[in-house]
Amino acid sequence: MSYFLKALKLDVETGSPKIALLNEKEAWHYGIHAGDHLKLTLNGKPLYVSANTSKQRVKPGRIGLYKDIWEKTRITNGDIVQVAFQESAHSIQAIKRRLLGKRLKYEEIYSIISDIATDQLSKVQITYFVASGFMHDYTNEELYFLTKAMAETGDMLHFPGLVADKHSVGGLAGNRTTMIVVPILAALGIKIPKTSSRAITSPAGTADTMEVLAPVTFTVDEIKKIVGKTNGCLVWGGGLSLAPADDKILQVSYPMSLEPYSKMIVSIMAKKVATGVNHLIIDMPVGPTTKIPDMETARMLEKKFQYVAAKFSIKLKVSMIKTSDPVGFGVGPALEARDVLRVLQQKKERPGDLSRKAVHLAGQLLELVDYCKPGAGATIAWKVLDSGRAWRKMREIIKAQGGDPNIDSEQITLGAYKKYYTAAKTGQIVFTDNKSLNLVCRTLGAPSVKLAGVYLNKEYGVSVRKGERLFTIYAENKERLNLASKALEKLRIFHIK
Amino acid sequence: MSYFLKALKLDVETGSPKIALLNEKEAWHYGIHAGDHLKLTLNGKPLYVSANTSKQRVKPGRIGLYKDIWEKTRITNGDIVQVAFQESAHSIQAIKRRLLGKRLKYEEIYSIISDIATDQLSKVQITYFVASGFMHDYTNEELYFLTKAMAETGDMLHFPGLVADKHSVGGLAGNRTTMIVVPILAALGIKIPKTSSRAITSPAGTADTMEVLAPVTFTVDEIKKIVGKTNGCLVWGGGLSLAPADDKILQVSYPMSLEPYSKMIVSIMAKKVATGVNHLIIDMPVGPTTKIPDMETARMLEKKFQYVAAKFSIKLKVSMIKTSDPVGFGVGPALEARDVLRVLQQKKERPGDLSRKAVHLAGQLLELVDYCKPGAGATIAWKVLDSGRAWRKMREIIKAQGGDPNIDSEQITLGAYKKYYTAAKTGQIVFTDNKSLNLVCRTLGAPSVKLAGVYLNKEYGVSVRKGERLFTIYAENKERLNLASKALEKLRIFHIK
Repeated sequence: MSYFLKALKLDVETGSPKIALLNEKEAWHYGIHAGDHLKLTLNGKPLYVSANTSKQRVKPGRIGLYKDIWEKTRITNGDIVQVAFQESAHSIQAIKRRLLGKRLKYEEIYSIISDIATDQLSKVQITYFVASGFMHDYTNEELYFLTKAMAETGDMLHFPGLVADKHSVGGLAGNRTTMIVVPILAALGIKIPKTSSRAITSPAGTADTMEVLAPVTFTVDEIKKIVGKTNGCLVWGGGLSLAPADDKILQVSYPMSLEPYSKMIVSIMAKKVATGVNHLIIDMPVGPTTKIPDMETARMLEKKFQYVAAKFSIKLKVSMIKTSDPVGFGVGPALEARDVLRVLQQKKERPGDLSRKAVHLAGQLLELVDYCKPGAGATIAWKVLDSGRAWRKMREIIKAQGGDPNIDSEQITLGAYKKYYTAAKTGQIVFTDNKSLNLVCRTLGAPSVKLAGVYLNKEYGVSVRKGERLFTIYAENKERLNLASKALEKLRIFHIK
Repeated sequence: MSYFLKALKLDVETGSPKIALLNEKEAWHYGIHAGDHLKLTLNGKPLYVSANTSKQRVKPGRIGLYKDIWEKTRITNGDIVQVAFQESAHSIQAIKRRLLGKRLKYEEIYSIISDIATDQLSKVQITYFVASGFMHDYTNEELYFLTKAMAETGDMLHFPGLVADKHSVGGLAGNRTTMIVVPILAALGIKIPKTSSRAITSPAGTADTMEVLAPVTFTVDEIKKIVGKTNGCLVWGGGLSLAPADDKILQVSYPMSLEPYSKMIVSIMAKKVATGVNHLIIDMPVGPTTKIPDMETARMLEKKFQYVAAKFSIKLKVSMIKTSDPVGFGVGPALEARDVLRVLQQKKERPGDLSRKAVHLAGQLLELVDYCKPGAGATIAWKVLDSGRAWRKMREIIKAQGGDPNIDSEQITLGAYKKYYTAAKTGQIVFTDNKSLNLVCRTLGAPSVKLAGVYLNKEYGVSVRKGERLFTIYAENKERLNLASKALEKLRIFHIK
């Protein structure tokens, strides 16, 4: 169905996405609601807009077009505009086919992802697409198509030669191995341009933690310059436009707490393809409170990752480790940054589990890129860390990203308001409740408030005496401290038996 | 996942639905976006709100609550509020199960429909539900559950004894038989409280057309009074809260132009159940340009209608007629009202097809309610129309609804700006393009502009000479007339061969 309306120039700029203003009553009768996506035809050319409606500003029979549109389209007041729903768009036809259980071809998937990336599909329309993937899981071929389309509809970085990367699927508190693996690899002359996310469901992401030490938001050209100088970087991927459709799909997945595994694979791999990675190690913690509940699921995922990786000639290894415990002592950006520096600087108070895990992953990545023989990687990585070479490289990276290379782990600012929690009885720590830990950190304000978080004085498995210190909470003000105390009346981080 | 924030009273009233204001940056970190639906826990009680976000008005760690909320919940500034996604809501769990292909029980469907009706599910969440129905078609039992839940979550009318109704599934231009069937039945003492919709995809609905003669928006009590006085009414169903979830589901179906048949059945039957109808005739035009393309589909639908009707002890008959042609000469509210009055007043210029179809349907309904023997209904209906009894009853209804009972068909105001279109060649009319006709009427402003529309001087099948008048367009001003003329440069209403 389509209608004809007369163009009315409105002297307002709105920025993108493009908006057309319709008379509210008339729009209602046409079945058009604010936010709907419409296809206009002006002087024979198509133009995609979002509908806004107004009782007063536009009379029936008219369609208001903002400055952004009339500057680009040479329309004049009174021109005839044909108005239709975007129903005939190629992407919408493809979504309908997917809803009916059909498998999609590459052009179809490309049209959907491209229209999502360029804001030509509404939230409701994107939801239909996401729902179709939830109901009929993607084939391996569709996963490949989705990954390719997502990468190609955003920025693409290209580095010559070997490009290594390390990715964690997440789900553990702390676990800031990336900030140790990157300087180890870069110190050995291997290119590792790491883009990371900020926290989504955890108290700190790698980008949040690195930001305690240096800026993390850069353009593609700036990143190339940093990597050219140091072989590595630790930047925020969200500052670029890597696989931009991914975020928009995520937004309509939240309200249902849907995160299908297929979506996880596409999200990760699309960003790797866009970054030009050709050697990748994936850290996959497996356990009941992580994202991957058991080894069976982990192995199923590994196969899918390998399928997609092979299509892009990416050499990939999945490193599965059974665990649910936090890695490191600190949780929250500043506390995690301190853990990382303590490891790199080889301080006495460094968390051993973080050192060991980072060295293990760095070693596997060294083997994957054929830097050494199988089995020799960890020893090499250990030496680079132990000799201070990794720390020197990290200082180079911090400097290249505009931070202070003379920082010391003990100079990192933590929340001035703190409170200690002690053991209510003598016994052994039999369980660390990741979810409660996350919740307390969030309530303290992490990751927005960098200096907030929880420092774990004890860890899983150890024996404690009644009254011994278990953990410490840090906040920027008294209010936040009280808020977290209130939450801790109901929650337990450590279970003692 | 959930978080703790401190309540901040905001001195603003927003009306429903309830809104909570979060700090934008903090909300982003929590994965909360404007428009998301959240579950707050205040003093141990749950409260469902929509999230708004602001850079400045709320500091991190706080949650702004508007007057509407704090007046009802006795919160004070600084109270601790637990914030969580509505993921654990019963309705969302049910939607997820449906997405996975499971069949739902009544309580599950009720929770979904009830949460839609009371604005506790967001547009995105409703979309997941609609998508699930598109992918796995509803079983007959689910159709029954949906109908029941939709009816029960809105207003319910109760009339004692026999309650008749007539419904058209739509898809033909004109076709205002309802306004003739209702007075015929009511004149014979049969209760027929007709609620109609306004036009959604056509140039006029029954409510739009009746509104030319009398007001159509009434409360439940007012309707009962009108029906008590006259046995019939012709009111707008949208003025009541009959099956309120239906409209909200429709809103997320538009952007994909989805209208599955199952949705049509539930929409129609839920409103009949809510109106207390127990005898129903459904007018189902079948043809390539109507909503039902062929007899096979029509018969499949009839079975589903009968299944649902039986569950509510509704005696139902589906009247299938193969046609795609407009019924009556006028298209648009005023022109259709004139056709109706010409039939009721038995004027010489009355459209014969409209008379015949209305009498046929009224006759079938008389047989369905056992007013007469099978086969005798049409003759009785014809006599009521021919004798002027139907017209007298219509005048009573017009008066009871607050209109002028002394109206004459020729006094109805039509658009002052008109233009005739004539045959470009001599031949026979072999096709009437319903879609073009709709489009021209819409462009003229119908149904918002009541006096706008198209009068068909010729009809399907007749022979015309070159230059003979084919149809006339009516507009309220010159601008609209020109707009429609422009559209008619590209469109043809009649095809002559």
